[in-house]
Amino acid sequence: MKAELVAQPSKYGSLWPLPQKVQLSEVSFKLTSSSFRIVDAKDSTAGPSCSLLQDAYRRYYEYMFGIAKRQQLNKGRRTGPSELTELQVWITSPDSECDSYPSLTSDESYELSVNQPYAVLKAPKVWGALHGSKTFLSCIVIFNFIYCLIVLLSSFIQETMAMNKINVFHWHIVDDQSFPYLSRTFPQLSQQGAYHPYTHVYTPADVKMVIEFARLRGIRVIPEFDTPGHTQSWGKGQPDLLTPCYSGSKPSGTFGPVNPILNTTYDFMSQFFKEISAVFPDAYVHLGGDEVDFTCWKSNPDIQKFMDQQGFGQDYSKLESFYIQKLLDIVTTTEKGYTIWQEVFDNGVKLKPDTVVHVWIGGGSNEEMGKVTAAGYTTILSAPWYLDYISYAQDWQKYYKVEPLNFNGTEAQKKLVIGGEACLWGEYVDATNLTPRLWPRASAVAERLWSAKDVTDINDAFSRLSVHRCRMVDRGIPAEPLFSSYCPHEYKGI
Amino acid sequence: MKAELVAQPSKYGSLWPLPQKVQLSEVSFKLTSSSFRIVDAKDSTAGPSCSLLQDAYRRYYEYMFGIAKRQQLNKGRRTGPSELTELQVWITSPDSECDSYPSLTSDESYELSVNQPYAVLKAPKVWGALHGSKTFLSCIVIFNFIYCLIVLLSSFIQETMAMNKINVFHWHIVDDQSFPYLSRTFPQLSQQGAYHPYTHVYTPADVKMVIEFARLRGIRVIPEFDTPGHTQSWGKGQPDLLTPCYSGSKPSGTFGPVNPILNTTYDFMSQFFKEISAVFPDAYVHLGGDEVDFTCWKSNPDIQKFMDQQGFGQDYSKLESFYIQKLLDIVTTTEKGYTIWQEVFDNGVKLKPDTVVHVWIGGGSNEEMGKVTAAGYTTILSAPWYLDYISYAQDWQKYYKVEPLNFNGTEAQKKLVIGGEACLWGEYVDATNLTPRLWPRASAVAERLWSAKDVTDINDAFSRLSVHRCRMVDRGIPAEPLFSSYCPHEYKGI
Repeated sequence: MKAELVAQPSKYGSLWPLPQKVQLSEVSFKLTSSSFRIVDAKDSTAGPSCSLLQDAYRRYYEYMFGIAKRQQLNKGRRTGPSELTELQVWITSPDSECDSYPSLTSDESYELSVNQPYAVLKAPKVWGALHGSKTFLSCIVIFNFIYCLIVLLSSFIQETMAMNKINVFHWHIVDDQSFPYLSRTFPQLSQQGAYHPYTHVYTPADVKMVIEFARLRGIRVIPEFDTPGHTQSWGKGQPDLLTPCYSGSKPSGTFGPVNPILNTTYDFMSQFFKEISAVFPDAYVHLGGDEVDFTCWKSNPDIQKFMDQQGFGQDYSKLESFYIQKLLDIVTTTEKGYTIWQEVFDNGVKLKPDTVVHVWIGGGSNEEMGKVTAAGYTTILSAPWYLDYISYAQDWQKYYKVEPLNFNGTEAQKKLVIGGEACLWGEYVDATNLTPRLWPRASAVAERLWSAKDVTDINDAFSRLSVHRCRMVDRGIPAEPLFSSYCPHEYKGI
Repeated sequence: MKAELVAQPSKYGSLWPLPQKVQLSEVSFKLTSSSFRIVDAKDSTAGPSCSLLQDAYRRYYEYMFGIAKRQQLNKGRRTGPSELTELQVWITSPDSECDSYPSLTSDESYELSVNQPYAVLKAPKVWGALHGSKTFLSCIVIFNFIYCLIVLLSSFIQETMAMNKINVFHWHIVDDQSFPYLSRTFPQLSQQGAYHPYTHVYTPADVKMVIEFARLRGIRVIPEFDTPGHTQSWGKGQPDLLTPCYSGSKPSGTFGPVNPILNTTYDFMSQFFKEISAVFPDAYVHLGGDEVDFTCWKSNPDIQKFMDQQGFGQDYSKLESFYIQKLLDIVTTTEKGYTIWQEVFDNGVKLKPDTVVHVWIGGGSNEEMGKVTAAGYTTILSAPWYLDYISYAQDWQKYYKVEPLNFNGTEAQKKLVIGGEACLWGEYVDATNLTPRLWPRASAVAERLWSAKDVTDINDAFSRLSVHRCRMVDRGIPAEPLFSSYCPHEYKGI
């Protein structure tokens, strides 16, 4: 075994991801489960009726003192640091947004001050309060053996967050292999197209629960229904949706992408996306559009005839654009915004100005980011963060070192980069290995996107991330190790 | 997502690894939990007093009908395949070896015949019976929806096994980072050298349980105590064991490999390996000997003086050999055989003829295998099977395609290759990700080593391994997927 980074304690303790601004002091406080409370501040616009916050308080309290119990650190001595007895949560704007969904334009900023005997967490909306509470939790030292739980960095910690990133769950919910989404309008899609119609589907209740679970944590859910490619599973329950491929002059029995020349296709898409727009509250839907293989379209004589009629010649990307254009018009009528994979932009499809272009090809993708933003589109970067591409050793460092704005472009162009996304595709991943493959590698992406541009000290990151990883393990989440090391409490799963 | 291999059902059903010889027929049988029994054959030399077998019967029965219960397949119709009511286990040699430990020379062969109404499993020793029972289990079709559990390949299945491979647990129990082995003779080694002296150690009782757990499954346990390198953790609890490194004319405060010039070193090793030889019943111990860094030895003036006295000049590999030679002599007095990493052979250390040389450097290692066997040593091959080197996609195929005897050498040399070993080093692996990283990638190695040389059909292997992997998932083992697919019962862990 060879040594790599050495985990010297960070002056930021176990904070992860590092807030945009942190002010440290030497003073520390004690927390005791019997006296510590998370409460609504007197002037908060979100009171006891805001179940989102009340739910979060319970969750965080259990997490804080659950750890204390397991570590048996709660039998504090009588002397020592003075006590912190309250975290006051103060929602400052008239509408706390307690009962809404987080959105692209949500104000997620907060400011956390830790001062004896109170800590005060000020946020305009509940979303900032959720993030700020997590920061409070990640201040807590779980390795201290003397005094229970101690706020490490205090006196006056002030933080403001403007950008908030790992706050969207992009749910790539169907693909070639399986259609697990149970559609009320077209139940045969999952009945025929899922791996199994009962055991391997997402029912409407499942989907609702995922969305509510996410909302309570300030997370948006954006579903992806990828067309016209990657739709093999759609064809099983929806006859005539896919293009019949030909072998010579006869249908071969196999099918290609969505058939773009039939009116029935667009009738189906209209009804389908009407349902989707109702089921998923987020203002955006991801429409896919990646990796369309033209082989089958080329083989089909009806498609060829249509190409001639439209004057597309042999340029099948024009046919793809034709389809996408009509799909975008359909989705526009549902009053949703849309995100599309970069190929749709690359192929010159006319897009609404507020379309989000998702860049995924080429690890660096500097050139593509320049092009997309020069055309005035907002964009999300995923290209450097395909977590399914595993490799030996500490590849989290590779993700961490990416600077997403490192492309040729004006300041205005850089402002169009609204976020980044870590992708974990499912070819080689399921419930057996998802969690250790995702964490803490995704955590590295989180800090890159969440923290200030100058937070680049890899040794400091290693130290904090090691502790953060043990915090996850302690909560029963099998986050894999960064390097040979140990946690005070190891994962007890199989 | 892109398709790779397509899982066409194999004519061998879900057998994994494929036995050396299989004879198929079209007839299949039904098994019912209420009537099926695993029993000792009338003439078996191992009766009810052989707790190893009785324990195995219970385990296998629970496994067989546990699956049936979960799948609710046990409410058989009245008509259909005829019933198989017994598996008779017949130990044929006078000494069943029920109460011994498996060893390098154990007879692990067996012959399994499935004929209505009995299946008969004949084996000279209990070890073959354990392997044969697993074969019986892996005949069982878990996906059949009509008839409970059916022996798929039957009438007369006959198998013989001569080589048996994944039947050794090589326990690399200490390393630079930590010394978790709690030694009765030198308790300070783990007291000072483990990550934590109570929560991160293997007590004598733990070690005993591991060995007994393995024995009951026909698995040998060979511990590795690697010296003179990789011993940083040893130095914490055993002063003067390691070489003090110098910075100029003064000790730098850091330490290098075991100090080979002190008599106290060899006194310590004598006592230590005397304990090890008593604690671990296997006839072999792994002595390591890999990756010795000479930098510290070179810096130390006492070592330099010793080198001069011995006439070693500046050849520090001679010093390494000097140490290893003395260590081998010590271990020889404990009447254990030893395995060493290939560097010890490469450095020309004089070895006993029955030494096992463990080849690990260079993915292919053809040349090294040729050299080691030409020198007349038995050898174990690990070089192509370092499972900690992960990569994207189906790397199990790479492991599967290796032919371990594909090196230049005589037939006599090939016979010296007594096995192969899949290694999973711990730099990036712990309880959070061990299981999905190990399985089914190690299963691929198992079949390569277990089955006949001509078992090389990768599509057939993909099909059988996919089912075998679901069998593991069904038993609660989070074995990762080969490719996007599903199991009837998915892993329910976190």
